[in-house]
Parts: sequence; structure tokens; C-alpha cells
Amino acid sequence: MKGMTEASNGVEPFPAPRGSGGTPLTPTLEGDYVLDEPLLLESGRKLANPTLHYAVYGRLNAARDNAVLVCHALSGSALVGAWWPEVFAPGAVLSLQNDFVICINMLGSCYGSTGPGSVDPATGKVYGPDFPLVSIGDNVRAQAKMLDSLGVKRLRLVMGGSIGGMQALEWSILFPERVQRGLVIGVAPLSAMGLALNHLQREAILHDPLWAGGHYLPQRPPRRGLSLARQIGMLSYKSAELFDERYGRKPNRNGEDPWGNDGPACGLIGGRFDIAGYLDHQGERFIERFDANAYLAILRTMDTWDPLHGQSSATEVYGRIRARLSFVGISSDWLFPAQAVRELAQEVKAAGVQADYREMTSAHGHDAFLAEQAELVRLLQ
Amino acid sequence: MKGMTEASNGVEPFPAPRGSGGTPLTPTLEGDYVLDEPLLLESGRKLANPTLHYAVYGRLNAARDNAVLVCHALSGSALVGAWWPEVFAPGAVLSLQNDFVICINMLGSCYGSTGPGSVDPATGKVYGPDFPLVSIGDNVRAQAKMLDSLGVKRLRLVMGGSIGGMQALEWSILFPERVQRGLVIGVAPLSAMGLALNHLQREAILHDPLWAGGHYLPQRPPRRGLSLARQIGMLSYKSAELFDERYGRKPNRNGEDPWGNDGPACGLIGGRFDIAGYLDHQGERFIERFDANAYLAILRTMDTWDPLHGQSSATEVYGRIRARLSFVGISSDWLFPAQAVRELAQEVKAAGVQADYREMTSAHGHDAFLAEQAELVRLLQ
Repeated sequence: MKGMTEASNGVEPFPAPRGSGGTPLTPTLEGDYVLDEPLLLESGRKLANPTLHYAVYGRLNAARDNAVLVCHALSGSALVGAWWPEVFAPGAVLSLQNDFVICINMLGSCYGSTGPGSVDPATGKVYGPDFPLVSIGDNVRAQAKMLDSLGVKRLRLVMGGSIGGMQALEWSILFPERVQRGLVIGVAPLSAMGLALNHLQREAILHDPLWAGGHYLPQRPPRRGLSLARQIGMLSYKSAELFDERYGRKPNRNGEDPWGNDGPACGLIGGRFDIAGYLDHQGERFIERFDANAYLAILRTMDTWDPLHGQSSATEVYGRIRARLSFVGISSDWLFPAQAVRELAQEVKAAGVQADYREMTSAHGHDAFLAEQAELVRLLQ
Repeated sequence: MKGMTEASNGVEPFPAPRGSGGTPLTPTLEGDYVLDEPLLLESGRKLANPTLHYAVYGRLNAARDNAVLVCHALSGSALVGAWWPEVFAPGAVLSLQNDFVICINMLGSCYGSTGPGSVDPATGKVYGPDFPLVSIGDNVRAQAKMLDSLGVKRLRLVMGGSIGGMQALEWSILFPERVQRGLVIGVAPLSAMGLALNHLQREAILHDPLWAGGHYLPQRPPRRGLSLARQIGMLSYKSAELFDERYGRKPNRNGEDPWGNDGPACGLIGGRFDIAGYLDHQGERFIERFDANAYLAILRTMDTWDPLHGQSSATEVYGRIRARLSFVGISSDWLFPAQAVRELAQEVKAAGVQADYREMTSAHGHDAFLAEQAELVRLLQ
């Protein structure tokens, strides 16, 4: 494979995210693929010979008909075996014996593929704030070139949750002949509330003086802004029901007193409730593993995705699909409400596609596809 | 009335909020009442001779039995005739002919009552970050002293939405003999999700370097932090349904292009969607009329309210109530979900109180009690 290098090549400055359950699997190979031509973006700009960082699990068979592409969500990485291990459990969705599973880090990310922290070959400088909008379609076209180089013509399955689901559906639209089956989980084009949540996350980063117009140094990143952005995101990934059950109105477990008046400025601020301590902790964890400009880049990729944008009709766009698709909504998801996923499935089906809709009953909100993998697997079997 | 002064005395540095419908009414009198003793707070601290800024509408009759207390929400003011005019419409809830309507600005606010921007008589300096936690109960006890000075022994009605509803219920608990009827609208003790939303609003202000530990100068306030806090709040005051209907996925009405790559850092940020333009506008409007430390103070007042906190039982607390109460939930409210309001009403009723529950069907979310006043009035008649 052109430009492919082994793992531990130093291109991944951040620790990869870990799943919430199951045993992480080790990839057969983790490496980089460098496109041998510029990637022409939907926006009209070009990305010069971008790198795609990937992980593969299992082996491509001689017939080359056992390839599966898994697409990751906003802050995910190519290491699907680490963040979605239960999907590989015996009898689950994927099999290390039978499948050749490929996962490719999204462009714009900070987990090895070209992103705002990469050097722009045209200038010799880090892209920073000049990193262009890379759409879901741009990602899919770049991924297709990498699969070409692997000799993978057809995918027996493409699947993903959240932004990963956007990619899965886009694959089946852009490359109808290459996709046999698709799983689109917990996603639809973002609603106005979703766009609002992303706007506020973006603002949280931009308000941090250390963001410096996107020109911050790696050793001096806008940590507080990124932490607040993550915390706003966390609200939308979870559900009110789960928060009530886990945190309720309890004081923070470290003993802070929300009713107290002690300490500096404690009259105005006070001790935290447990939910606040949880959110702060999530923010702290996230800034150790993610980059603010990468976060901004992928928020835009997410915001701008709508297969019908600028197109004449749903029938024309979705009518191209040849794959058999399953859409999965999550009952307590308020970022991508189950109702919106159901309507998307109906719209696709109305265009003549073999599509079904399934619903996960879970209190975990949008995160359920990662937090309740066993339930997801049960639904997909 | 001790310490009472006419309006336009310069204590109100911010323009008062305006309602969204109806004709604003002019108060009979707007002024200040200064407590002639320190207010002992639930937290154990004292507030030295605080000022309560108030507005009254109509006249107290000879029997002194026509007094109504209206309690305002987070960013409201004493000028209830400006922000809730339709409640005064002919045949609606209140009557300028028959009622003596009193509205008192909350302690902690920036609309005339003592708050973080006031001078602490003990130090001669502005309270700033040392302003203490003033609970809903503390506010109610201070309001009761003011009513004493007016010779108002009994309230024919106490009513309010959101934090105003917290005060209405607290009045009926703390002063059972003085309240005949109560309307508690769109409120219950904050859930974990509500506490989370307030936490993030607080963080948005604290992250602004201009907040300066609460010691900012009035002419150099943390505008960006307060704007972001307001925008986070706005999400929780509205509903996803309303946002979809009004803004959907449309580009900002000023012509920005969310799919574009032009302008500085536009690759990472891009043109705004319409919902983002709306939120930014709301943030801009808010920083002209509200103060960041006052916002922090009232967030805490709101967070800490739970009539059962530290009490032995709901029966004991709510069993004291003598007023007839009506609770109003709003179908699309996700800050104080209708289900939570209904459960609070049931709990109060189970303690032997005459209480009923009514539900506003509205797409406006929590804000419906201000945005759809005619519908609220219909429900209350």
C-alpha cells in the first residue's frame, strides 16, 4: 500500500479514546496511507496529499469479499477494537475470524489523519485555522481511494454511529456499487437544536484567549475552552433520566457543599453538585486527549452534512442506494432524536431502498451506541 | 414605608426586560424599601439592611385584602407590567381596578435590589464575589418584611413562573397564614440536567478573563462569558420543535454561508446557521441589560432551592400549606419538564394540600409562560 507505515510513527500525539466495556482488541495493523494526489473538496478547495491513519483487524480473504468499514464518531479514532469491542464479541456483529475490519481516522481529527495540526505542504506551516472544511463526502471519497489501494472493491458492510453513521449513509449514496449493507446508528442531519449545541461548543473554544485565532502553540492550547465545549457536548450525549439516576441533586462526591458560603468567591459560586463534578472531570479528561482545532474542524464536518443539501429531490439522492440499510434510533437521544432517525429511514425507504428502522430502548441518550454495546448488538442480530 | 423612594433614583443601572406581547403597564409606584435590620440568611451569614426594589400597580383597598404578589424569574425585574402585560388584560388573572399588585426585585439581581454590584455597608466596598448565597427562602422572608411595612398581612394570590414559581411555593410554606392562593408555573427543584445547564453557564462566565475573580469594573465586564451563558440558557428556555420550525437548517439570514471556506479562519469556523445568528443576537441583547455577578448570584439561588432539603418529610413541609395551589407544567419544557411539575403537585397534594395540576400545550418550551401569555391566562381562568 502506497505510503503505508507501521504504527508508533509519532503521528498520533494524543492518547486514543477507550471504550466503556469489553476487552480492547489489538489491530492486525495500524498505519498511514498517503493519497498520491490532492483531494478535491466539495467546497472547491484542495487538501494536498492527505494522510489517512487507519487500523485493520482480521485479514482480507482471497475473494476480497469480507471487508467491513467501521466509521468513528467526533472524538473517536481508528482503533475501533478499543472503543467498540463488544461489536466483535463471539456471535456479535463483526468477527475477527471471518471479517477484514477497517477503520479510518477522519480528516480533521488529531488521531493521525491530516488535520489542523498537520503541516500544509503548500506553505510548510501547520494548517491551524486555515484548515479547510472537509465534508462527510470528502472523507468518504478519500476513504474510497485508500480502499482502492488495498484492493477492496466492495464492502460487505459499512457501519457507524453519530458522525460515523453519516459516513455510512454517505458511502451507500456515493458508491452504491461498493456497499452491500449499511448500519446507520443514532444519526440524521443535525436539527436546529443540534446546530445550536455545536455553535455553543465552537464559541466556548473561540472565547478562550489561548485559542488565539487558532494559532495557539501545541504546548499552550485553549484547555478551558475545549473543556467547556466538551461539557456542553456531554449534556447532549447523555439523557436527563440518566443524570437524575446517577447524580440527582447530590453534592459533589468529594465533599463540596453547594449550600455553603465558605472559600474565596464562594458566595457567588459555591460548592459543586455531583453532576457538575462529573462534567468538570469529563472536561479534564478530554483536554488530555483531544485538540481544539480538530474539534472545531469536525464540528463543521458534522454541521454541514445533509445529503439533500443543494440536491433536487430525496428520490434522486437516496434512489441511487443499492445497499440494504438498517437505521437505529435511540429512545433517549435528544441530539439525534429517534423520531428524526425514523423519519430519515422512511425517506430513504420511500426512495425505493431496502431499509428498516430499529430502536434501542436505553436511558443513556446518544451515547448508548457506545455505552450499551451489548444492547446494540442484540438489536443488530 | 421606611426607606421608600420614588423611581428614577439611579439604583437601576440596566434597562429593564420587556415582555414579548401586550402593552407595558406603568406602575402606580416604583421605589426602594430598605430593611431596618440585617437579613439573617439560611446559610448563617447576614446581609446588612438590604434594599428591595419594587413596583406596585393599582391600589391597596381599605380592607387590605386585595394584595397580589408576583415573583419574577432569573433575569426579570420588578416591572411585571412590562414583562407580563397580558396577565393584566381585562378578564385575565390580575385587575388594575381590583388588585394591588406588588412585584419585588430579587436579592442578587441588578435591577435595584441589593446584589453583588451593591456596596456592602460593613466594608464600604462593592460586594462583588463576596456577595453571599441568598436562598429563595431568604428572599421570601425579606419580601414579607416589606409587606409588613405596607400593612399587607394577607395575599389573595402569590404567583410566578420559573424562579418566580419557587418563591410562590416557598411563600405558601413559610407563611401559610398569609397566602390564600398560589400559582406555581413551570418549576420544580432543578433536576441534574438543570443543575448541569446552570453549571455550564457559570463556567462560561468564570472562563472569561475579564470576570477577574468577580472583581471586574462595571465598565469592563465579562461580556463574552455572560453572552455565552445566556445562549446556553436560551437552549434550555426554548424547545427543539420551536427551533426547527423557526430556524431549521437555514443559513443565517444575513447571508453567511455555512458551507463556505472564505474569510479568516473560515475553514475551521465557517458562516453561521440561522439558529447560531439568533443565539448570538440573544447574547448581545442580554449583555446590555444584565450583570455577570448578578447572574451568578441568582443561578445559585435557583440551584439550591429544594423545599425538602434537610427536612424530615414532604408531609411535614408541604403539610403546613393552607393556600389553594395550582401548578402549571409546560408540555415542551425540558428545563423543568412537565412531568417534574406534575410530580411536585402530586407530592404537595399528598400532604393534604388543596392543589391541582394544569398543563400548557405549547412548543415554546420553558419560555411559554412569557411567550404565550394568552394561552397561560386561558389555562388559569
